Amino acid sequence: MKNVAIFGAGRIGRIHAANLAALSGVRLQFVCDPVAGAAAELAARHGATVATPEAVFDDPTIDAVAIASSTDTHSDLINRAAAAELAARHGATVATPEAVFDDPTIDAVAIASSTDTHSDLINRAAAAGKHIFCEKPVDMSVPRAQASAAAVRAAGVACMIGFQRRFDPTFNEARQRLDRGEIGDPEMLVITSRDPGAPPPEYIKVSGGIFRDMLIHDFDVFRWILCADGDEAEWLSATGSVLTDPAITALGDMDSTAVTIRTHKGRLCQINTSRRAAYGYDQRFEVLGSRGMLQCGNHTPSEVRQWDALGVRGDKPEPFFLQRYQAAYRLEITHFFECLQSGAPFRTSIADGVAAQRLAEAAALSCNTGQPVTL
Amino acid sequence: MKNVAIFGAGRIGRIHAANLAALSGVRLQFVCDPVAGAAAELAARHGATVATPEAVFDDPTIDAVAIASSTDTHSDLINRAAAAELAARHGATVATPEAVFDDPTIDAVAIASSTDTHSDLINRAAAAGKHIFCEKPVDMSVPRAQASAAAVRAAGVACMIGFQRRFDPTFNEARQRLDRGEIGDPEMLVITSRDPGAPPPEYIKVSGGIFRDMLIHDFDVFRWILCADGDEAEWLSATGSVLTDPAITALGDMDSTAVTIRTHKGRLCQINTSRRAAYGYDQRFEVLGSRGMLQCGNHTPSEVRQWDALGVRGDKPEPFFLQRYQAAYRLEITHFFECLQSGAPFRTSIADGVAAQRLAEAAALSCNTGQPVTL
Amino acid sequence: MKNVAIFGAGRIGRIHAANLAALSGVRLQFVCDPVAGAAAELAARHGATVATPEAVFDDPTIDAVAIASSTDTHSDLINRAAAAELAARHGATVATPEAVFDDPTIDAVAIASSTDTHSDLINRAAAAGKHIFCEKPVDMSVPRAQASAAAVRAAGVACMIGFQRRFDPTFNEARQRLDRGEIGDPEMLVITSRDPGAPPPEYIKVSGGIFRDMLIHDFDVFRWILCADGDEAEWLSATGSVLTDPAITALGDMDSTAVTIRTHKGRLCQINTSRRAAYGYDQRFEVLGSRGMLQCGNHTPSEVRQWDALGVRGDKPEPFFLQRYQAAYRLEITHFFECLQSGAPFRTSIADGVAAQRLAEAAALSCNTGQPVTL
Amino acid sequence: MKNVAIFGAGRIGRIHAANLAALSGVRLQFVCDPVAGAAAELAARHGATVATPEAVFDDPTIDAVAIASSTDTHSDLINRAAAAELAARHGATVATPEAVFDDPTIDAVAIASSTDTHSDLINRAAAAGKHIFCEKPVDMSVPRAQASAAAVRAAGVACMIGFQRRFDPTFNEARQRLDRGEIGDPEMLVITSRDPGAPPPEYIKVSGGIFRDMLIHDFDVFRWILCADGDEAEWLSATGSVLTDPAITALGDMDSTAVTIRTHKGRLCQINTSRRAAYGYDQRFEVLGSRGMLQCGNHTPSEVRQWDALGVRGDKPEPFFLQRYQAAYRLEITHFFECLQSGAPFRTSIADGVAAQRLAEAAALSCNTGQPVTL
Repeated sequence: MKNVAIFGAGRIGRIHAANLAALSGVRLQFVCDPVAGAAAELAARHGATVATPEAVFDDPTIDAVAIASSTDTHSDLINRAAAAELAARHGATVATPEAVFDDPTIDAVAIASSTDTHSDLINRAAAAGKHIFCEKPVDMSVPRAQASAAAVRAAGVACMIGFQRRFDPTFNEARQRLDRGEIGDPEMLVITSRDPGAPPPEYIKVSGGIFRDMLIHDFDVFRWILCADGDEAEWLSATGSVLTDPAITALGDMDSTAVTIRTHKGRLCQINTSRRAAYGYDQRFEVLGSRGMLQCGNHTPSEVRQWDALGVRGDKPEPFFLQRYQAAYRLEITHFFECLQSGAPFRTSIADGVAAQRLAEAAALSCNTGQPVTL
Repeated sequence: MKNVAIFGAGRIGRIHAANLAALSGVRLQFVCDPVAGAAAELAARHGATVATPEAVFDDPTIDAVAIASSTDTHSDLINRAAAAELAARHGATVATPEAVFDDPTIDAVAIASSTDTHSDLINRAAAAGKHIFCEKPVDMSVPRAQASAAAVRAAGVACMIGFQRRFDPTFNEARQRLDRGEIGDPEMLVITSRDPGAPPPEYIKVSGGIFRDMLIHDFDVFRWILCADGDEAEWLSATGSVLTDPAITALGDMDSTAVTIRTHKGRLCQINTSRRAAYGYDQRFEVLGSRGMLQCGNHTPSEVRQWDALGVRGDKPEPFFLQRYQAAYRLEITHFFECLQSGAPFRTSIADGVAAQRLAEAAALSCNTGQPVTL
Repeated sequence: MKNVAIFGAGRIGRIHAANLAALSGVRLQFVCDPVAGAAAELAARHGATVATPEAVFDDPTIDAVAIASSTDTHSDLINRAAAAELAARHGATVATPEAVFDDPTIDAVAIASSTDTHSDLINRAAAAGKHIFCEKPVDMSVPRAQASAAAVRAAGVACMIGFQRRFDPTFNEARQRLDRGEIGDPEMLVITSRDPGAPPPEYIKVSGGIFRDMLIHDFDVFRWILCADGDEAEWLSATGSVLTDPAITALGDMDSTAVTIRTHKGRLCQINTSRRAAYGYDQRFEVLGSRGMLQCGNHTPSEVRQWDALGVRGDKPEPFFLQRYQAAYRLEITHFFECLQSGAPFRTSIADGVAAQRLAEAAALSCNTGQPVTL
Repeated sequence: MKNVAIFGAGRIGRIHAANLAALSGVRLQFVCDPVAGAAAELAARHGATVATPEAVFDDPTIDAVAIASSTDTHSDLINRAAAAELAARHGATVATPEAVFDDPTIDAVAIASSTDTHSDLINRAAAAGKHIFCEKPVDMSVPRAQASAAAVRAAGVACMIGFQRRFDPTFNEARQRLDRGEIGDPEMLVITSRDPGAPPPEYIKVSGGIFRDMLIHDFDVFRWILCADGDEAEWLSATGSVLTDPAITALGDMDSTAVTIRTHKGRLCQINTSRRAAYGYDQRFEVLGSRGMLQCGNHTPSEVRQWDALGVRGDKPEPFFLQRYQAAYRLEITHFFECLQSGAPFRTSIADGVAAQRLAEAAALSCNTGQPVTL
């Protein structure tokens, strides 16, 4: 039995908590408000407020608005109330980070709190000898991410980064077919990655920019699919625009980007992203190999085709990441504990987290300067 | 909190038990060996045997063989060991039927034991005032099924029959679109229902024949899709053959059938079934309406398309019913408790169970005589 | 160089004439008004009327109305004007049947005139030693069709019946894969055959009923796909309804039918047809074999998929038979001359025409009596 | 009646000649060997050789090799024999360019000869007052192409460039939906353009490089789809590799490229190309708009889906451009004469030809220097 604490009780923290709670051999012991304060007490005092995160998190009708706001934008108060509610839901206890790190019965921590807390919590968990599952990104700053990677190595703990796309049943099936050589050697990769709508300005302001916030996943997919033999990016060119809302320009960000990467072996990758796809969350990639192509499509709620005067139509893709990557979130946390058990390396190490961050950094630089970056 | 007992610890019982255990507001209290005997004691005595059902039920490599064997063909010994194992897995207790029916804290029972035990358990549960979820069919004999329906009515308990296809996300989405009038009035229905392979002779022998065993689901789909406005079958013609294995002829059964039903309103339904589809479990239907068509396709493990010298290919359908109807099994048991809570009628009543059984009976008769049956 | 005369200048005659004219090695010499009279002279006299068939045949905006009316319903006057116009278009001459049959330079005739003229023209062409391409059906009466088949045999001329579906690129690809054994032995066939809309009452009145008019093609597909090894229908059951327009009942016909056929070898075929599919002309079949399934889909005008708030939608099927079977019409007439050249047997003989007619007859009988027919 | 001469009797010339010959209102009068010499006489003298181009052009079994070799690599002798054969096939006469340009009855010329002859023939045709249909590209040199455009303008003749993709039924349907505003304003374009295999070294040597030879079409598609409102490319970045055959490196070319274009309005286009797709000729694009996406797929020989132990598979795309763009070639030449008749502007003007050539030039420069190009 592995005892676990989770940091963060926002949208993604709740997903992980539920998946943890359903794992056999795992006990979710603590839910932790990483910022500070007596969450339980506060929650008790602000009973009325406990309803708020519930309303926000569970009400399907407000998904489109709420989804993009993320944990970063919640007030402390809501965070704490959420932690109390989440702990109660899974029979866990609310605790402070100190209590978690000091508790010798805790084997592992899952970090799902806001991005700015990740590297510090990794460092402290490593120092306390806890194994670590951490949501992407490691840190917005590459040096700080590298420092956390060093801390992990020094402490000899295991650390997995939550690039959940590597656990998506469709994407992972493609990876397995590449491993079996079904399309020969991979040569080109085209990634299409589009959100259903732009997040609110407050989110964009603290997001680190579209390359660090949104494309970080795509950079990891690039490395996972094209660089499995040790190849890496050699040359990267990025550009972008604001096409959906001029307010994004004022925030210094973009909503539409086009990135090209060439590897040392000459493999080519193109990534196209947009903050707005009127038809839902669009997550696809195609990899061309010497003997064929693998094309990974979206998932849909049903397999109904409606034939009528308008044509023959199937469902839109799943609306957003919580639906599309529902299985992936479950499979990644299972993988985390399986690897802890067996000693096998994680599919997504902290080194992968740092590498993706470096590509995001390079893309932001290339886009700003209008010049390619050699890595 | 609803307290529940489950009867049957075979393949389908285990599915229901796991889904029950994951429901909030529901407690799985007893696992019950419906036949008799001290399951726990036996299980303890035959510790080595407890591994056997595990091996049979959980080993994915022997699915093709094991899947079709069903609870009916297990020896008592294995049944009992299975009950003990299942109870242990979910923190429930093994009990006798008597204990279950006598326990006033038990609100509802889930009957997933062998078909020949269904009507008796329904009758006893009704007499004991327990609400009932029962796997299809109610009974192989229409009169006995009708008697159970009467017992349920007399006792005033709620009874839902597990026609899980009505809870399949794809099939149910079609039903909802019909309700919204998206294709106008339904006129024709074509059901394709094919198993990946024929079951073993021992199973076929006790199965009641392909119409009662396999098409019972299709008859229910026919009523659900074409008869929502109170229409019913008026004329039915069935024929069939043995095309996959001559041994099936010797058992008095068939492996391939073609059924046509005309309703009082003149709607037409055609059902084609086979015990063998080399490409997996094929579960589709198409309903033509006055303003369009709804086509329900299979579900697949992934959305990968492989383009190579052979063409462009997607996955085979999910291999068999446990995978295809995984979500449906979860959703139907959720529905059962939601209806108990709200008092709403079940989507699949015991009357639906009797009506499907009558169509199965008529089809068997038509096929044997070579003449249509007027209902 | 083969010299050819065509009978009939209606919609289908014009298709064949254009395809004939484009064939190298073939010269379309005569267009023939099969009824009688001096077509050219009439056409000259009624110059204003010549515009009428043009307007009817070439104006794409009136397709929906005109399509279903067929040659049978044209007045003589229009027929004759049409013949003159068609002859002029392809540099051919208008001639009487007598002139055609008496001309020793004519090698072959293509019969595309109204159904009631087919058998007589076949008989006369055979007597004159001309090879014959004749549109389906041979004749509404099975005995008359058999008599024409006998006349053809006696004369030793070649006679091909225009079951154009056997030349459809999709359907024929399926046939070729069956020949190569790609799905093993064929066992079950499901044919979906739906028109975009019901024809006008005047057409229905003379059509011979839906089984002879519409399903004749499906009966031929059944024999082509399931009976290639000499198997034949043994048992047939048909039923039907009027679901689209009560006026059809008054005409003694139906608009929706469901037919089941069992062969001597136990193979099963189900055919579902409707006179109305709101989404266009629906022409599909699926054949299940011992090692897989072949599924033949509709053809579409383009390969555009539109992703928007409604879902992901492709084109409707081609609107009607002239579009769907455009390639098939071209390929069948090419086949006719290739076989004349090489001496190879036609893919669709007059015996096939008679056999399909017999099945149509049986289906009409079964539907009327409510009893299956043993063949 | 328009009288026409065609220059070039290679593969593409033969396509155009056949399409011209089938047009009503058009007479193909001359087939012209653009190089020089008495083609007819030569053809007569070298009768045995006439078989050679036939064998090359019509034998489907040697397509893969022959297709890529193009007219540029034929010896004069074969060219001349081909001209004679082509003229004979369509009842035209072999003529010298001088004879064509001097003949006052010739209204228009179709230039399908080798690329190096295009600009000179355009100039001479313009001077002679003939309307011009010319295969892409106008010329490998942008200045020479611009000079030809000026000559056309000065002469007041009409000149259409054969970017046949704009006439592809699928691609053009997308363009029409954009015009109708079905997906709002276009924002991003992803073009996938892959050949089935690399051409022979001799071809690559004279091809002008992959950007001018292969991507010229994609650059035109970019302008057609994203720049319909007068927008144009502002920034272009290109890179590439040799992944299929090291011999291509020695020839100074590449076989895999990735191009990104940003327009003045901030629209983004990514083009990925490869000389080798193991699954056939892959020609697709996707355009994202503010209200949806249009996805243009490949065309396939049939609509058969085979379901078997390997999965569910459809046809590979059409093998190469002659098959994929068969309808497009027919429709573009029809469009040419319709515009001549009506005076409407061509869908693809010589200005479009020059603009695409400029983008090809910029891409080659960007790829060589590793730096983006501002246009």
